[in-house]
Amino acid sequence: MTIGDGLVAIAAALAVMTGIFSTAGQGYVAAKAVEAVGKNPEAENEIRTMLILGAGIAETAAIYGLLIAFLILFAY
Amino acid sequence: MTIGDGLVAIAAALAVMTGIFSTAGQGYVAAKAVEAVGKNPEAENEIRTMLILGAGIAETAAIYGLLIAFLILFAY
Amino acid sequence: MTIGDGLVAIAAALAVMTGIFSTAGQGYVAAKAVEAVGKNPEAENEIRTMLILGAGIAETAAIYGLLIAFLILFAY
Amino acid sequence: MTIGDGLVAIAAALAVMTGIFSTAGQGYVAAKAVEAVGKNPEAENEIRTMLILGAGIAETAAIYGLLIAFLILFAY
Amino acid sequence: MTIGDGLVAIAAALAVMTGIFSTAGQGYVAAKAVEAVGKNPEAENEIRTMLILGAGIAETAAIYGLLIAFLILFAY
Repeated sequence: MTIGDGLVAIAAALAVMTGIFSTAGQGYVAAKAVEAVGKNPEAENEIRTMLILGAGIAETAAIYGLLIAFLILFAY
Repeated sequence: MTIGDGLVAIAAALAVMTGIFSTAGQGYVAAKAVEAVGKNPEAENEIRTMLILGAGIAETAAIYGLLIAFLILFAY
Repeated sequence: MTIGDGLVAIAAALAVMTGIFSTAGQGYVAAKAVEAVGKNPEAENEIRTMLILGAGIAETAAIYGLLIAFLILFAY
Repeated sequence: MTIGDGLVAIAAALAVMTGIFSTAGQGYVAAKAVEAVGKNPEAENEIRTMLILGAGIAETAAIYGLLIAFLILFAY
Repeated sequence: MTIGDGLVAIAAALAVMTGIFSTAGQGYVAAKAVEAVGKNPEAENEIRTMLILGAGIAETAAIYGLLIAFLILFAY
C-alpha cells in the first residue's frame, strides 16, 4: 500500500469515529430509562418509547460518520 | 492514491466529525425526556414534541458537517 | 511492511477505537441498573429488560467501528 | 524492524487501548453494587446478577479492541 | 536499534497503558466498600464478596493490554 492509500484508510477511520461519544450519550439516556423504570415500573411502556425515540435521534450523527466512512473506502 | 488524495479524504472525515458531540448533546436531551416521562407519564405528548423540537435544533451543525464532507468528496 | 501498510493498520485501530467510551457509557447504565435493583428488587425484570435494550442501542456505534476496522484490514 | 513494522505494532497497541475506560466504567458498576449490597444485603443475589450482566455488556467493546489487536499482529 | 525497533517498544508501552485508569476505577470500588462496611459492619461478608467480584471484572481490560504488550515484545 502507498502512503496515500494509508491516509485514505485513516480518513475512513476518522469518519466512523464521529460516533465515538455515541455510547456515552446513549448510555446516559439508557441509564435514565433504567432509573425511571426502577422508580415507576407501571410507566414502562412510555419510558421505553421515549428511550427508543430519543436514542434514535442521537444516533443520526454516528450514521453520518458511518456513511462517509463507506464512501471514502469504496466510492472515492 | 496520491498523498494529496489521502489528505482530501482526511478533510472529508474531519468535516463529518463536526457532529462528534451531537450524540452527547442529544443524548442529554433524550435522557431528560425519559426522566420527565417517568415522573409524569400523562405529559408524554408534550414531552415528545419538546424532545423532537430541541433535538432537531441540536442536529443542524452535524448536518452542516455532513454537507461539507459530501462537497469535499464529490464536488471538489 | 511498508509505511503505507502501517498507516492502514493504524486506521483499523482508530476505527475500532470508536467504541472507546463504550465501557464508560454502558458502565453508567449498568451502575444505575444495579442501584435500581438494590432499591426495588421486585422490579428486577423491568430493570433488566430496560438495561439490555438501552445498552444494545448504545452498542451500535462500537459495532460500526468494528465493521469499518474489518473492512479496512480485509476489504480495502 | 522497519518503520512499517513499528507502525503496525503501534496499531495493535491502539486497538487494545479501546478498553482503556473499562476499569473506570466497570469500577463504577462495581462501586454501585458494593454500595447497594451494603444498604440491602438481602438483595445480594439480584444485585450480583445485575452486576455480572451489566459489566458483561460493558466489556464488549474492550473485546472488539483485543480482537482487532490480534488480527493486526497475526493476520494482517 | 532502528527507528522501527523504537516504535515497537513504544507500542508495547501503549498496550500496557490500557490499564491506566485501573487504580482510579478500582480505587472507587474499594472506597465504596470501605464506606459501606463502615455504615453496615454486619454486611462485611457480602460487601467483601462483591468487592472482589466487581474489582476482578474491572481488571480484565488491563490484562488484555498486558497480554498484547507481551506479544508485541516477544512474538511479533
